[in-house]
Amino acid sequence: MEDKIMKQVDAQLEIIRRGVAEIIPEEELKQKLYKSIKENRPLRAKLGLDPTAPDIHLGHTVVLNKLRQFQDLGHQVHLIIGDATGRIGDPSGKSETRKQLTEEEIKLNAATYQDQIFKVLDKEKTIVHFNSEWLMSMNLEAVLRLAGRYTVARMLERDDFDKRYKEGLPIGVHEFLYPLMQGYDSVVLEADVELGGTDQKFNLLVGRHLQREYGHEPQIALMMPILEGLDGVQKMSKSLGNYIGVNEEAYEMFGKTMSISDELISRYFELLTRVSMNDIKDMQVRMDSGELNPRDVKINLAKELITMYHSAEEAEKAEARFKLVYSQGDIPDDIPEVDVVDAEVWLPKFLQENDMVSSSSDGRRMLKQGAIRVNGEKYEDENLMVSDGMVVQVGKRKFIRIKAE
Amino acid sequence: MEDKIMKQVDAQLEIIRRGVAEIIPEEELKQKLYKSIKENRPLRAKLGLDPTAPDIHLGHTVVLNKLRQFQDLGHQVHLIIGDATGRIGDPSGKSETRKQLTEEEIKLNAATYQDQIFKVLDKEKTIVHFNSEWLMSMNLEAVLRLAGRYTVARMLERDDFDKRYKEGLPIGVHEFLYPLMQGYDSVVLEADVELGGTDQKFNLLVGRHLQREYGHEPQIALMMPILEGLDGVQKMSKSLGNYIGVNEEAYEMFGKTMSISDELISRYFELLTRVSMNDIKDMQVRMDSGELNPRDVKINLAKELITMYHSAEEAEKAEARFKLVYSQGDIPDDIPEVDVVDAEVWLPKFLQENDMVSSSSDGRRMLKQGAIRVNGEKYEDENLMVSDGMVVQVGKRKFIRIKAE
Repeated sequence: MEDKIMKQVDAQLEIIRRGVAEIIPEEELKQKLYKSIKENRPLRAKLGLDPTAPDIHLGHTVVLNKLRQFQDLGHQVHLIIGDATGRIGDPSGKSETRKQLTEEEIKLNAATYQDQIFKVLDKEKTIVHFNSEWLMSMNLEAVLRLAGRYTVARMLERDDFDKRYKEGLPIGVHEFLYPLMQGYDSVVLEADVELGGTDQKFNLLVGRHLQREYGHEPQIALMMPILEGLDGVQKMSKSLGNYIGVNEEAYEMFGKTMSISDELISRYFELLTRVSMNDIKDMQVRMDSGELNPRDVKINLAKELITMYHSAEEAEKAEARFKLVYSQGDIPDDIPEVDVVDAEVWLPKFLQENDMVSSSSDGRRMLKQGAIRVNGEKYEDENLMVSDGMVVQVGKRKFIRIKAE
Repeated sequence: MEDKIMKQVDAQLEIIRRGVAEIIPEEELKQKLYKSIKENRPLRAKLGLDPTAPDIHLGHTVVLNKLRQFQDLGHQVHLIIGDATGRIGDPSGKSETRKQLTEEEIKLNAATYQDQIFKVLDKEKTIVHFNSEWLMSMNLEAVLRLAGRYTVARMLERDDFDKRYKEGLPIGVHEFLYPLMQGYDSVVLEADVELGGTDQKFNLLVGRHLQREYGHEPQIALMMPILEGLDGVQKMSKSLGNYIGVNEEAYEMFGKTMSISDELISRYFELLTRVSMNDIKDMQVRMDSGELNPRDVKINLAKELITMYHSAEEAEKAEARFKLVYSQGDIPDDIPEVDVVDAEVWLPKFLQENDMVSSSSDGRRMLKQGAIRVNGEKYEDENLMVSDGMVVQVGKRKFIRIKAE
C-alpha cells in the first residue's frame, strides 16, 4: 500500500518536474502529493493573472501547460484574476502601465483572457476567482495586520525594489502592499502550490511566508523558466515583437515557428507541447546525428502548436501551404502580398501593376529571358492561373505572394 | 487698515515664536495669520495624542502651552486622540509598547488625558476628535491611494527608520503606514498648523506633503523643543524618573522644582509658564548680577507651576512648608521620613529607635553636647512636640523628617 502510493508520488513528481526551473521546497511537495493521494484530496494549484494585459502569447503558456499537467494528475486549479489592483490603478498616478480600469474593462479583459487560457486548461477543472472578492472588503485594520507580517528590509530585497532603491528611483509605499495582497490571496485560497515564472519567486515566497504567519500550511513555490522569444536571446514579449500569440492565425504561427533557431527546438517542445520527453530526447539525438533535418522537426513543432491553438486540420493546411510556397525555392519570408480577384492574369501587365517591372513590354522581355519564376520554378507563359499562396518572382530579388479568395 | 493688520500679525507672531524650535515655513504662517485676521477666521491648530500612555508631565505641556497661546490669540485647537492605532495594537505582535487596547481602556485613557490637558487648554475652545472616526472606515482602496502618495526612500529617511534599517533591526511594513495615517488626519481636519516636539518633524512634514497631494493648502509644522528633565541633561521622561507630573501633589512639585540647576530656570519659565518674556529676561539679568538669589527665583517658578496645576492657595502652602523645613538649615532633599503618631516624643529614645544614636544614653549625651538640631536650629530639651514636615538632625549628616497626621 505505502509502496504503491510512493510509486504514484514519484510518477506525479516526474511529470511535475518537467521543464521546471525551481521548486521550493521539493521535499514538501512530495509530502503534499503523498497526502493528496492517500487522502484522495486534490492539491490546490494557484496562478495569479494581471487583467490589465489580456493578450496571451506562448511565453505565458509555459506556466499554463504546467497547470494543465496538474489538472491531468487530478488536481484543482485556481486562477486569480487580480482585479482589485486593476480597479485601483496606480494611486501615485505615475505609472503608465498600471492605469485604472473600469469594471467593464476588467470584465472584458477577464473574458478575453479566459477564452485564450481555456485553450490550454481544462475549463471543468478550473476555478476562477476575482481577488476583489476578499481584498475590497479589507479595512484599515486588516491591512495593517497584513502589513505587520512582513518587514521593510525583506521587501527591499526584491530585485526590482533593490535596484530602484539603489538607483534613487521612486518606489511608492503602496507598492510594498501589492506582494502582500498577492500573498494574501494564497492565504484565502489555502493554496498548496503557487505557480509562476522565475521572476515571481519573491512574490511566491511572500505567499508562503504569510500562510505560515496566519497559521496555515505553507504553499510550494513552483517556478517555470522564462521562455526565450523567436530570436532565442531575449525573453518572449509583445513589446519586443519576438512572440507567437495564442490567438494568431495558423499560418502566421507556422511561419514564426519555422523562424526559430535549431537550438530552441527541444526547449519549445518541452515547455510548449504535450509531446513526451522520451520522444523529444529521441528527436534531439536524431537531429544531432544528422538523421533528422531540423527543418522537418520545426514543421512538427509548428503543427503541434497549431493543433493546440486551432485544430489538426488547420495544422495540415498550414503545412501544405508552407511546403508549396517555401519548399520550392529560396524564397524569403517577408515578401509583399497581393490580393487577386480574377483567377487568370496577363503576366506582363500584372507584373507592371505590382511594380515588378517598369512596363508591360519590360514584362514580356523578362518572360522571354526566363527571368520569371512561379513557386520557384521558371515560368514562360504570358497567362497565369493564380491561386492562394502562389509566389511570383522577377529576377533574383523581387517577390510577391498571391492572396486569393 | 493693511498696516493695522500687519501690526496684529507681528504681535501674534511674537507670541507664537516664544520658545519655538522651528517653524516650517515661517513665511507661510505669516500669510495664514494675515488671512485669518483679515477674514476673521481662526486658524485650525492640531495636536495628535497617543492614548496608550495617558500620564502627562511638564515635558508634554511645552506643546500644550503653545496651543494655549493659539487659543488666547483666538484660534481653534483640534486634539486628535489616535485611538485607531491603539485599537489595532501592533499587528506584528512584536512591540511591547504598542499593545492592543480595548475600547474601554482607550475611553478611560482619553478621559484621564483630558482631565490633565484641560489644566492647560481652554476646554471651550478645544475640539477633541478620535481618528478612528475616519481611519476605521478606510478600505483597501483608500489605503492604497494614501500609501501611493509617499515613497519608500523618503520614509526611510526618518531618523529612527534609517537607524533601524542600517542596524538590521526589523521595521514592519505597517509602520510605514502610521506616519501616513497621522498625516491623513491633517488632510481630514484641514489643519493650518500642526504642533509637535522636534522629534515629530518628519511626521508633521508628511502631513504637509499629503495635504498638498490631496489638493489642500499645506499646514505649517511648528516644533517645540524637547524639555530637559530635572537633571538638566536627559529629556524629561517618566522612565528616566526626571519628571514633574501634571497630577503630582503640590509639595512634590515644589520640591522637584527646587532641585533643578540654575541654568534651567529661565528655560522652564519660558516653556512652562505664562510669565512674560520681559519679566523672565529681567529675572535672568538680576540673577546674573547677583541681585537675585536663584533659590528665590526657583521658589517663584515652583509657585507658578503649582498655581497652574493646583491653585494659588496650594502654592502659598507649599512655599510656607518648604521655608519652614528647608530654609532653616542645610538640609538635603532626600532624607528618610518617619511616621509619628503621638504629638510628643522623648528624644533620646526616639533618636535610638530611628537609628540616629546607638542608645538612649548616647542620645542624652548628644543633646547635652548641642549636637541635635530641629528644623536647622539647635535643640536641647529632652521632649519634643513633633509636627508634620519637621526635620530632626543629629550631628552633621543624620536627618529624619517627621510625617504626622
